[in-house]
Amino acid sequence: MTTTFSYNTLYQFTFSVFKKIGCSDEHATIASKALLSADLRGIESHGIARLSGYVRLWETGRVNANPDIKIIHETPSTAVIDGDKGLGLVVAHYSMQATIDKAKNVGTGWTSVKNSNHFGIAGCHAMQALEHDMIGIAMTNASALVAPTFSIERMLGTNPIAVAIPAKSQPAFVADFATTTAANGKLEVLQRKNEDMPLGWAQTKDGKNTTNANVIKNGGALLPLGSDREHASHKGYALGSIVDIFSAVLSGASYGPWAPPFPAYIPMPQNMPGEGLGHFFGAMRVDAFRPKEDFFQHIDNWIERFRSAKTVEGQERVLIPGDPEREAEAKHKEHGIPLLAKVTEDLSQLAEKLNVPQL
Amino acid sequence: MTTTFSYNTLYQFTFSVFKKIGCSDEHATIASKALLSADLRGIESHGIARLSGYVRLWETGRVNANPDIKIIHETPSTAVIDGDKGLGLVVAHYSMQATIDKAKNVGTGWTSVKNSNHFGIAGCHAMQALEHDMIGIAMTNASALVAPTFSIERMLGTNPIAVAIPAKSQPAFVADFATTTAANGKLEVLQRKNEDMPLGWAQTKDGKNTTNANVIKNGGALLPLGSDREHASHKGYALGSIVDIFSAVLSGASYGPWAPPFPAYIPMPQNMPGEGLGHFFGAMRVDAFRPKEDFFQHIDNWIERFRSAKTVEGQERVLIPGDPEREAEAKHKEHGIPLLAKVTEDLSQLAEKLNVPQL
Repeated sequence: MTTTFSYNTLYQFTFSVFKKIGCSDEHATIASKALLSADLRGIESHGIARLSGYVRLWETGRVNANPDIKIIHETPSTAVIDGDKGLGLVVAHYSMQATIDKAKNVGTGWTSVKNSNHFGIAGCHAMQALEHDMIGIAMTNASALVAPTFSIERMLGTNPIAVAIPAKSQPAFVADFATTTAANGKLEVLQRKNEDMPLGWAQTKDGKNTTNANVIKNGGALLPLGSDREHASHKGYALGSIVDIFSAVLSGASYGPWAPPFPAYIPMPQNMPGEGLGHFFGAMRVDAFRPKEDFFQHIDNWIERFRSAKTVEGQERVLIPGDPEREAEAKHKEHGIPLLAKVTEDLSQLAEKLNVPQL
Repeated sequence: MTTTFSYNTLYQFTFSVFKKIGCSDEHATIASKALLSADLRGIESHGIARLSGYVRLWETGRVNANPDIKIIHETPSTAVIDGDKGLGLVVAHYSMQATIDKAKNVGTGWTSVKNSNHFGIAGCHAMQALEHDMIGIAMTNASALVAPTFSIERMLGTNPIAVAIPAKSQPAFVADFATTTAANGKLEVLQRKNEDMPLGWAQTKDGKNTTNANVIKNGGALLPLGSDREHASHKGYALGSIVDIFSAVLSGASYGPWAPPFPAYIPMPQNMPGEGLGHFFGAMRVDAFRPKEDFFQHIDNWIERFRSAKTVEGQERVLIPGDPEREAEAKHKEHGIPLLAKVTEDLSQLAEKLNVPQL
């Protein structure tokens, strides 16, 4: 059961919600665009379905709608930014802008951010770099749901990495992925349908492999990319750890099992070693490495060659990272964005609570 | 069947071989240390077992023993380096040094390298940054053995990523991994023993899953980290692609299926779009982000917390990336390095051919 809405309708609604909790026009615009970029790109778990979750974080005082986002330490190519408990959607935008400014000056920029909140999809922030002919990088830590290899404890978030690489005749290369085998959103879909999941996505609280998609609610954990030791889960564990350290240990945010949870009803961890969630951003000017025209000629060639790679029988084509999301965006812009009944009901209650016009 | 040699014995032998092909004392020293760091750290597939392979590349003119390694393009935080067909072991060392120098000046350094050859283990170069209280990053492309998700063509190398993060009371965090489920060296071990491999490591030339470890010799391909689409092989494919683009498209090296092969008997690809193999290096001063003492306090805390995470029953401990290699190094320094008979025979022939003292 879905209802389809135009992007503009969802945008007006989202904007009015962010305004209502006290965001400035500028912040409400930035937050709405970032949040809805997930729905446009077909990553509905991270889009407007989370709007009421962000509002609940504001209600409990964990989100500050009027943050004073500022650089607290810097060198010519680096900065640490204090997000002042702002919406991650907004903090990430300004942080990526500061990262891009560094790259304009000295070739690359690298920014680690503390005292922030969930920032939506990583890809949206990495893609800010593209219009400047820069490679953009974005990552964030998140509340702990993932067990390291050989462990039964939830120590890491799904800690995504996004890398956006500009091209010219081809669309940009945009990789954006959780460092786990499956994102938690995929388990939630199966939970709603009461269906099993493949082996290798999650483990029970005792560390046993399972097909029960409800296992996370019962003390289980998601598995790092690779699933088990024989299939190199230690590599996914290392990747998730690198994201955690770059995002939170470099910045002074809270890391590992102490990362603050997204659901406002879950109490904050005890003895947090830092402030809020952490992010890490990078921007590299392509002409800091070689003349732009040379770079674009070869990245186009790279993409064309990979796109035309021979397929396994039964598969139509080899995808370039970002292809499915770009195609979803084109479709959703033309035909609107479908929302599940569960989501529209939640948004209807939100509208009532905040006294903003219904969707 | 193995024979054990002291590090010094292997070092003297390796040094004499590199000298004999025309390396300077300085280059022979650097190359020997880099090559043997693999044997010390227990990654024997990348160590002295490859020495005769490097010599064959020199014999065919693909390796220049006296390279003029130079920066051909730069900004305050970036450089592109032309390796002049030098040994990757040597080119990587100087490139990482240049990367570190950039970081001293502006907080971080980022170097893309073309016209190089295989550089041994990535971790060894990333670790150069540690003594400067910097995070080190190293990656390289390699000859194509890996099929993208949905493809039967070999388009990418095993394209490793290494990230070394300094700590104080704890040993450094050192992740160093191929972006495939299994490194090719693991398949070679099984081939020698005539044993099967687990499903999910490689596919046949038609793209079928298989346990036949000889499949690579018969037109098959290694699988990206994640193994299959259901277990997120598109993420491993994206990671391998990012390594390829950062190492070769940014620098002007040859990329994707055109990356030059390591075995000298395999002809070079036709219509190569760049020069030689490519590498990518990064260095970030920890105090470019926060005061050193704060960083070290929290990275030590991070490592201690993860090391003490609860284990799955039957597992003794949770590992920190770099633990197994550091323990191998301590063991090998004390008790010597065991070499397979096949390797010592190969080195004996090499000594004879080059007229250097036998091992």
